[in-house]
Parts: sequence; C-alpha cells; structure tokens
Amino acid sequence: MVKIGIVGGTGYTGVELLRILASHPAADVRAITSRGEAGTRVVDMFASLRGKYDGLAFTAPDATDLTSCDVVFFATPHGVAMAQARGLVAAGVRIIDLAADFRIKDAAVFERWYKLPHACPDLLAESVYGLPEFHRDAIREARIVGNPGCYPTSMQLGFVPLLEAGIVDTRHLIADCKSGASGAGRKAEVGLLLAEASDNFKAYGMSGHRHHPETVQELTRHSATPVDLVFTPHLLPMIRGIHSTLYARLTRTDVDLQALFETRYAGEPFVDVMPAGSTPDTRSVRASNVARIAVHRPGNGDMVTVLVVEDNLVKGAAGQAVQNMNLMFGLPETAGLTAAPVLP
Amino acid sequence: MVKIGIVGGTGYTGVELLRILASHPAADVRAITSRGEAGTRVVDMFASLRGKYDGLAFTAPDATDLTSCDVVFFATPHGVAMAQARGLVAAGVRIIDLAADFRIKDAAVFERWYKLPHACPDLLAESVYGLPEFHRDAIREARIVGNPGCYPTSMQLGFVPLLEAGIVDTRHLIADCKSGASGAGRKAEVGLLLAEASDNFKAYGMSGHRHHPETVQELTRHSATPVDLVFTPHLLPMIRGIHSTLYARLTRTDVDLQALFETRYAGEPFVDVMPAGSTPDTRSVRASNVARIAVHRPGNGDMVTVLVVEDNLVKGAAGQAVQNMNLMFGLPETAGLTAAPVLP
Amino acid sequence: MVKIGIVGGTGYTGVELLRILASHPAADVRAITSRGEAGTRVVDMFASLRGKYDGLAFTAPDATDLTSCDVVFFATPHGVAMAQARGLVAAGVRIIDLAADFRIKDAAVFERWYKLPHACPDLLAESVYGLPEFHRDAIREARIVGNPGCYPTSMQLGFVPLLEAGIVDTRHLIADCKSGASGAGRKAEVGLLLAEASDNFKAYGMSGHRHHPETVQELTRHSATPVDLVFTPHLLPMIRGIHSTLYARLTRTDVDLQALFETRYAGEPFVDVMPAGSTPDTRSVRASNVARIAVHRPGNGDMVTVLVVEDNLVKGAAGQAVQNMNLMFGLPETAGLTAAPVLP
Amino acid sequence: MVKIGIVGGTGYTGVELLRILASHPAADVRAITSRGEAGTRVVDMFASLRGKYDGLAFTAPDATDLTSCDVVFFATPHGVAMAQARGLVAAGVRIIDLAADFRIKDAAVFERWYKLPHACPDLLAESVYGLPEFHRDAIREARIVGNPGCYPTSMQLGFVPLLEAGIVDTRHLIADCKSGASGAGRKAEVGLLLAEASDNFKAYGMSGHRHHPETVQELTRHSATPVDLVFTPHLLPMIRGIHSTLYARLTRTDVDLQALFETRYAGEPFVDVMPAGSTPDTRSVRASNVARIAVHRPGNGDMVTVLVVEDNLVKGAAGQAVQNMNLMFGLPETAGLTAAPVLP
Repeated sequence: MVKIGIVGGTGYTGVELLRILASHPAADVRAITSRGEAGTRVVDMFASLRGKYDGLAFTAPDATDLTSCDVVFFATPHGVAMAQARGLVAAGVRIIDLAADFRIKDAAVFERWYKLPHACPDLLAESVYGLPEFHRDAIREARIVGNPGCYPTSMQLGFVPLLEAGIVDTRHLIADCKSGASGAGRKAEVGLLLAEASDNFKAYGMSGHRHHPETVQELTRHSATPVDLVFTPHLLPMIRGIHSTLYARLTRTDVDLQALFETRYAGEPFVDVMPAGSTPDTRSVRASNVARIAVHRPGNGDMVTVLVVEDNLVKGAAGQAVQNMNLMFGLPETAGLTAAPVLP
Repeated sequence: MVKIGIVGGTGYTGVELLRILASHPAADVRAITSRGEAGTRVVDMFASLRGKYDGLAFTAPDATDLTSCDVVFFATPHGVAMAQARGLVAAGVRIIDLAADFRIKDAAVFERWYKLPHACPDLLAESVYGLPEFHRDAIREARIVGNPGCYPTSMQLGFVPLLEAGIVDTRHLIADCKSGASGAGRKAEVGLLLAEASDNFKAYGMSGHRHHPETVQELTRHSATPVDLVFTPHLLPMIRGIHSTLYARLTRTDVDLQALFETRYAGEPFVDVMPAGSTPDTRSVRASNVARIAVHRPGNGDMVTVLVVEDNLVKGAAGQAVQNMNLMFGLPETAGLTAAPVLP
Repeated sequence: MVKIGIVGGTGYTGVELLRILASHPAADVRAITSRGEAGTRVVDMFASLRGKYDGLAFTAPDATDLTSCDVVFFATPHGVAMAQARGLVAAGVRIIDLAADFRIKDAAVFERWYKLPHACPDLLAESVYGLPEFHRDAIREARIVGNPGCYPTSMQLGFVPLLEAGIVDTRHLIADCKSGASGAGRKAEVGLLLAEASDNFKAYGMSGHRHHPETVQELTRHSATPVDLVFTPHLLPMIRGIHSTLYARLTRTDVDLQALFETRYAGEPFVDVMPAGSTPDTRSVRASNVARIAVHRPGNGDMVTVLVVEDNLVKGAAGQAVQNMNLMFGLPETAGLTAAPVLP
Repeated sequence: MVKIGIVGGTGYTGVELLRILASHPAADVRAITSRGEAGTRVVDMFASLRGKYDGLAFTAPDATDLTSCDVVFFATPHGVAMAQARGLVAAGVRIIDLAADFRIKDAAVFERWYKLPHACPDLLAESVYGLPEFHRDAIREARIVGNPGCYPTSMQLGFVPLLEAGIVDTRHLIADCKSGASGAGRKAEVGLLLAEASDNFKAYGMSGHRHHPETVQELTRHSATPVDLVFTPHLLPMIRGIHSTLYARLTRTDVDLQALFETRYAGEPFVDVMPAGSTPDTRSVRASNVARIAVHRPGNGDMVTVLVVEDNLVKGAAGQAVQNMNLMFGLPETAGLTAAPVLP
C-alpha cells in the first residue's frame, strides 16, 4: 500500500482525488490537511464519501507530519507546494503537485504569470511534467511531478502528433477550448453561481490565461519550429468536461491524419482515438481518466481540426495525478482508474 | 411619469426591476444606489441593459437624495428599508420594500426571525402587505408597501381560496416548494455555484425558514380556524421559477374546486387558473408577472393538491413590486407587465 | 463468473447495467439483444463503453439463445419479460426484470394499469419483489425477481420504518417526488427535450402514475392498517437523481424518529441514515447504489417529513438489479457496487 | 395594423414569433396553420401564451386562405415556403421565410445541400437576403425575404467588417460556433433529450453543415478575394443563445480593430459593439434581438478573434424576421423588439 498525504483537500481536485483513491487497490490515505476545515470530518463536508473515509478528518497543515507518507498530493492554490517541497523531498517523500508550481520550467516565466517568486528553482529543474503519454519514463523516477493543467492536457494530446510529424504551420495554432464550471474550482465567486453561469456561455481570459505559457512550453518540446498559439477558453454551463477544438493549417496534405493519431497513441490506456468522422462528446469520458480524440480535415482542405474531450477533474487533474502515482510506485498504470464513464 | 429611486440595485431583484422598468410607459428611474458599486455605470455591471440605462450610474447611499422621488424601491438586504423609511415618508416619498422589513406585522416575531429590532414599529403598523390580489385597495393608498416573499406569494395564491371557503383542515397544511437558484440572491456562496447546485436537488431550511411566519400570518387572515403549516423549501437546478405543490385535507368533498378557484380569481390579470387536469410548468411564466394555478383531487379522495407556478423574480419580487407601484400611482395595474413569458 | 444476458440494452437502464457490470468482479456479459440495433456494436452506440465491451454487439432477440446464461436481465418496455419468462425459467435461467411485469402481484391490477393481460400469472405468483432491504432472503432463492420501480424504492425506504412502527396515519400518506429526466427513459419525446425540460419544473401524472399501485401494494405489507397515498411525481431539470419528500401525520409523537430509522437500517450497506437535521442532496448518491435518508419533525409538531435521495438509474434500477443478482448467486451483496458517488 | 399569417407555428421559431408579435404595436395575427395541430387552440399548446391569443387556433394549411394577409411568415421545414410563394406573391402578399428556401441564390447549390429542386428560381432571383444590417434598403422593397440562418447571422456580423476592410486572409477563416439546443428545433430526437444533451458538449456536422454555403455566399459579397471558411458547430447544454468565436489571420496589423467595428455598426439598433476587452455572454441578449460583438487581437499578434453573441431564436430567427417586417411595412425598425434581455 502507498501511504498518501493530501494537502488542501477541500476543493474539487481534492474531493476528486478522494473519490478515485477510495476505489484504488493500493492507496492508503493517511492524512489530509486544510487550513480552514481542520477538525472537520471529511464525510461531514462531502456526504458522497460517507462510508469511505469515516475515520478521516482534516488536520491543520502546521500540525500534520507528512514525512511518513510515501507521496503527498498538493491540491492547493499555487504557491503552497513549492513552499513545502524541500522538506518533504529531503524526508524521502515524493510529491505530485496539482497546482502550477512545477509546471513551468523557466522561473521567470512562472513569476510573471503567477506573481510569485519561485521558492525552489533547483527542485523545479529536476521536477517532471506529469503528462504520462509523453514523459512516462521520467515520471517513474521523479521525486517531484508537476501535474499538468486541464486545458494544457487536452491541447497537448491534440496537437503533439501534428507537431511531431512536422506537418502544420506552428506559428498559427488555434485552440478554442470550452470547460465545465468545476474547472474554476470550488470558489465562491458571483460569476460561477448557477444563476449566472447556467443557461449561459462566454469566453474569458482573452488578455492571457496561465495555461497559455505552460502549453506553449510543452508544445515547443515536440516541434522543430517555434510555436505560437491563440488560446480562447470558454465557460460551459455544465459541471465537468473539457472540449478543445484545435485548428492548424496543414503544410502537407498528403498525410493520413487518422493513421497518424492512431499510431501515435497505440497502446495508450487513456487516449482513445475515435473512428474517422467521429465527434466525441464530453459525457463519454465523464468521471473517467480517458481522453477521446477525433481528427478531421474539413472539406479536404488545408486545415486540420482536432477534437479532444476529457474530464477536467480526472484526466485534467486528479485522475492524471493518480496515473502518475501509479507510475512512480510501480503499480499498474491503470490501477484505480478503470471504472467506465458515467453516461447518461 | 413616476420618478423612481432604487436602493440597492446590484442584486437579482434590482436588475429585474431595471429590466421591467425599462419597458414601463410611465417609469423614470432617477437614481440607483449601491454601497459597493458607487460610481459604476449600470450598463457596465449588467451588459443586458446596454442601451437602456446608458446615463445611469450607481451612487453612494449617503450621497444620494431620494426625497425628490415619488417612490423608492428597496432591493436590499433586510434592515435597510426600515432604517430609511421615516425620512422618506416624511418627505412624501412612498416606499416599496422588496425585503422583509414591512412584511411581518408583529415586531417581536420579526425580531425573532430576522435578528433585528424593528426600527419603526409605527410605520410597520400602517404599512400594507403588497399582495394585490388580496389587498388591492389598501395598496392604492399605502405610503409603505411590504412586498411579499417569493414563496409566500405562491403559497397564499394557492391556499387562500381553500381557506376562505373553509373546506380544509387548517392545522395540517403542507407546502412542498421548489425554487430556482436566483431566489437565493446574487450572493457568492459555495452552495449556489453551478458546479454544486446544477444537476442536483435538495431540501433546505428544515429547521425553519423566514417565509414560514410571513405565510402563516397572512393565511391566518383568510381562515376562520388557526393555521399550521409544514413548509419544505427545495433548491431547483435552474435559474428562475417557483413551483409550489400544496396539500391539504378536505373537510368537505362536495365542493367544485375548479369552480372555486376560477371564481375567486375571475378578472385577475396576473392569476391564471388553468383548465382542470393541468400541470403548469414554471417556464410558462418565465420572465412574466403571471402565476398559474391548477387544482387537483387525487383519486377523488379527501386530499386536495394545488400546483402554483410563478417566476420568483417577477410575481415573486420585482414584477409584483411594479404591480404595486401601478396601483399606488393610479396607473393601469398591468403597465409594464404585459410581455409574454419567454418559452422555450 | 456469472453468465449474463441482457434483453433490450439500448435504454438508460441497459447502458447503466453495462456500466456497472464492466467493473463487476464476477460478471460475464455474454449476450445483449436489441430489436432495433441488431448488428450494432455496443461501443458504437455508447462511446463511453469503448474499451469495455469491444467484442460485444447487439443481437436480434429471435436469433439469440439465452438459455446458456445463468441470469437474464430485462431492460425492456413492460410486457417483454413475461413473454419470455417461461422458456428461460424452464431452462434454468434466472430472471431479473427491470420493467414492471413482476412487480404487481394482482394480475388484474397489473392489467388495469399496464393495459396488458399478464402472460404467466403462475410465475408472477412465485416471483419476488426485488427490494433487498425488505426481501433479502426471498431474493436469494428467487427464480424471478421483479426489480422495483425507481420512485417506489425511495417511497418504501422512507415510509416503511414509520409503518412498521405503527406511528402514522396510514390513510393520508403524501409523497412529493422529483425525478431527473433519465427516469423517463431514452425516448424521443418532445417534452423531454433539453429545450423543453431544462430550466423548467413541473408535476405530471396527476391522474394516476403506475408507480402508485406498486407502492401501495408494498407499503401495505408493512402496515397493520390500510394505506392511502397521494403521490405527486415531478420532472427535475437534471439527468439523474430522485428526491422524495414524504409526509405523514404522526399518531404518536413520543418516538425517537432518528433512532427508529438508524436501528431499522443498521448494517444495510446501501441505506444511509443521515445525521439528525440533514438535508441530503441527490448528487451525494450520483452514480452510486446508496440511498440516503433524513427524518425531520418540523416545528416539533405532529407531522413527520422524510427526505430520501437515490440515483434513479442505480438504486432505482440497474444497481438494485445487480444487488439482487449478487444475492441470487451468493456473491458479496456489494460486489460491483462500491465505487464512490461522483461529486461534483 | 399589419395583417399577419404564420405557416407552421408549432416549432420554436413559430412560438417565438407569437411571443414577439404579442407585444408588437402594429401586428394583427390573423391565421396560423399547422398540418398536425389543426383545430388545437394556440394557448392549449403553449400555455405561456394564455391571455395573448385566446381566440386563435391552428388551421389546416389547405383550408386556410392567406391571401388577405399583408405578410406571411413561414416557420416551416425547408421546402414549404417555395411551394406556396408564387400564389401568395401573385395575390400581393409579402413573404418572410424563416427556413432556407430563399437564402441560397444558386438553385443548384440549394439543391445539393437541401436535396430538393427549387420550386421557383425566378422568385428566388428577386428575393432578398434578410440581414438588415447589410441589405436594409432592398428589404424595404422586397416581396420575398429569405430570413438568414442563426449561425450565418452571427458569422456575417463578425466577419463582414474585416472583409470589407480587406485586412484578413479570406482563404482561412475559422468559425467555432456554439448553439443552444433550441437551434435544432422542436423535434423529438434522442440526441436532443435533456438526459443526452445536458451536462454535455460536442461538435457536430463536421462533414458539412447547411449554414456553410449560405455563409460563404454572403461573406463573398463583402470580400474582394475568394472566401474559404472552416465552420465547426457545437451543441451547448442550454436552451437559447449562439456564441460564435471567429478567427482570421490579419494581413495588416496597423488597423484599429475596435474603431473599425464601432464605425461599421454606428447607429445600428441591434448590433452592439462592446468596449475593448469585453467578453460578451449569451445571456446578455437572451430573448432580445440584439447581437453583441467584441473584437480582440490576442497577444497583439497577427490573428484577430471576434466574439459574437445572439439569441438564436430572436436575432437568429423570429426577431430578425420581425425586424424585416418592420422595414417592409414602413414601421419603426425596432417596433416590438425593444424589451430588455432577460438576465439572469
């Protein structure tokens, strides 16, 4: 059994981690911290977990010794993981950060977008970007994994095969992305109220979204030419699910795009390349770690459209984190992640 | 033209008042105050009103002289209207309070439920409960109108014909009420987030809801026998609309209930008694001041079930307030309130 | 492994059965029939099941030999199971019918409500009503199980402890029930369109709902006095979940209702009596076989209000069917049913 | 008063026409036909219209003489208007077709996309494309108006200023469009059920959507260079509203895009160019004829992103049809279309 600590378990990624780990064959959640809810039983906050974690209560961060854990998940706001990373790593604890502290390799870029100096640039340098489909081996050995953002996961899964093949204009990539409201977190904001966000749709973050530099950084790794990306996030009137509609101009139109994607993801347990002509819906991955992809060439022209769906809380957050944990501890990569999506 | 002031215009009842008054033939909104948004243009807060109130900005309450208004609407939290009522009334301004300050006649009861001493019991005594279907004449003359709560409006419209007829057991009335999320107001609370309240349904307020004493007070006026009421509010995963399902035990089963309701509300412009056998849906009154009612006797037994739908923001709040204003100023009762409901 | 056949797998209870059985440790789905979709691969109809049933296709009912199965689930319209029951039972196959053919014991009552003569009254007589919390032992031995309706499950779980204790007026039970739209099945009806049923709420079935006689039949078993029930179903603007708000008049007010319910359901793996004062939400059981119950005495008066939530497709249909299968085949009752609810 | 006939009034565009015309100062709805609902009173089908059209019933198309009307709206499936146009025009009746019969000028293109030969190519030739912002004068004189599609309206409003200015690569326009479910019409299809389409999001029509040729035809009128368009429609889990996110590559980056749009639409009553930096939400135009537009240049690069919102049933259908009627009959262009959007 893997001894697990969770820092900051009251948000959506925290409760989703708990949900997934409740069915995981090798997970032993030892501690969960919360500054605001110390003393509250987990099941008193989340009735859905009654019977699963009856003995577990949130504890104060300062009063919780996590050094006996094998791994600590940070389901916290940005800045918390890097503040505690050094001590935990020194104690031999491995870290999976679901926030952004270990995603952006250039500390200056991190600082510009997150308005925080990075607390441990040396650990940042050794940390691994936790997208298993592209960094599986490094994750296995990592002491610190920066779990990718929800949007970036979908954009990378959709664009990378095209970039690796070198068949698109990398200076004019477009990602029109739509996310369910849980992606904004469990925060009391007027704009996220049901009465505001339901029966409504809008773009946001037009002046720059933090997932932009993260995505460009990672896409660049797979591209022989510089990458420019127009990224438009939109808020969907629903709870879970991301749908990214990706556009690129083809520099070659003689490549079998369907075969390209099928080959690239052959054997991947959590990436499903749909049959040609498909339009995946977000509910087909609801509550599951699978991402589904369809690739189209509209009108057989010189543009490619890639459709990617994922559950933002699973493959976009907690599920991917567990997938990373499985790799780090030599468990089957799919352990705890095999339940079928919930449809309808 | 009626010169209008609005105190506290940033909540849902406030913006709904503005929406309705924008089409009102005799409304002249002179001032709108907000403690938090003073200086903000109304259209910068509510894009839906662009082109309707381009010259209007929120002003600070303390810096706003409302004494030149003919009427002031209070779309505020409880306690604000009663604090300002005396001055305004002295200046000859009439008041319509959309909060609870002038709903409950017994100041001690008010204090128990709202945790506030009443600031002006004398004005409370003269104020009129603003449900026009039952108090039309008094409203015409009123200096202060206490606009009813959203749930109480629906419960009264459904129960009163039965009480007046004296044909139900008044000690065991049951109101199973369901409200859209806008009924909770434009408040940043976690429980009202789309990701929490959407695709979900629950009861709340089981230990006592403030609309309970208000409703019992008013029902009692129409009943020869004491009234006891079990009231269960529930939160619907939608924006607007209240559906009250009312139950009572018939003490007489020889009364034509359909005729009773049709007669009671004959000529009422905003109460629609549906044909026998109907099940009104909330969307049939969306964005409209109409309440629709259907009355049933399940299995021809000794129980009566009354179904009442209203838009909580219109007949349950801002629309009823405008209906009251129309009465107070000798305007046609339906002025500004004639647009058809929005369906689908 | 239990060899399983499913008749009629294209509706919501069918796909939900497939979802649950995909994670069941002892389930081997051998055949699934569909008149309309014979030849279609299951995963081509339900993308959510890709990777789970890649080799399974719908077959024509007439061309499918189910006699080698251990159990056949009928996820069909009413009337199908009774037509095939005799042959299957003769072949030693056990039957779990998710429709109504084996719920109502009186064939005349069945005929009146379902407009069909019963095809096998003898088998009806021996069949067992599949609500494990009340008929566990009989289910273990049953050749035919009539899986309860979704509403009746919730009503029985909430009312039975009160009836058994003999502390309520059984002639005036009231069940105000609200169901998500999946309860109406995967049928192309205008009234169930998103554009009709979303952002909307209404009652239906006021002239009599088929779940009424079923519920009265079962409640009567637990009551020393005759049972009359007013049952008002409503359509919720959401996918999954039933919330039943149950009312009864107490004939004794000296009973500790919380203790009564806790004692009655002690040890039940799928009935969760919530702490006193709770208001369970439907999402707390989303995609799970658990029902949660809270019991209230409003104002400490002589009425009791019981709140029951369940997922209509799980405890209200497919999950309960699997629970029954587990009992029938000597498996752990919770096998395949342990995943935590999906929240948010 | 304008004497109005409506052919096919049982769909969403039909009921929306009725809703709008109910408040129109010069509209007199004389007849409404329906093949399937002949004899049904309008208010028995749409309870929301009770009190508005109490004397109006659907009549059989064959038994209805529309030649005494001033104008006939066709809110029908494609193919109906062109079959009746010749007779009506000959009788001096003007026609506004909300379907596609008079949108596509090339009869061969129409036939390829709609699988119908055009019944009256001569009338097609004289008909006017009913987008007032671009064809106001011609609409005033038109005998037949082809009311634009919902998606095409939004795409044209967003792209035309760029095309007219000649500052974008017209061969690689991208329109990522999202529509509420009412856009698919009031059709009983499984994919449009609340239980399917709610809490879900997907693209569709990737192999070609009928609004594509219509849009390209119209955009071409405004462009000096040939137009190619990638158009991806998506289905939003909500009732009303279209959000089109439009992308184009700038061939000149020295143009003030904000000023370009503001100038182009100065004085337009139904096109609102939002302040720089805005992200309009669909609810800001709910139930209103206004379209709101925001223009962005992400990262000050060589791409332009235009955000356009409209209510698909109003500016995208019935409202625009009434706007056209107003022009055709010399009424104020905004008559009947001035109510503020419904928010929340």
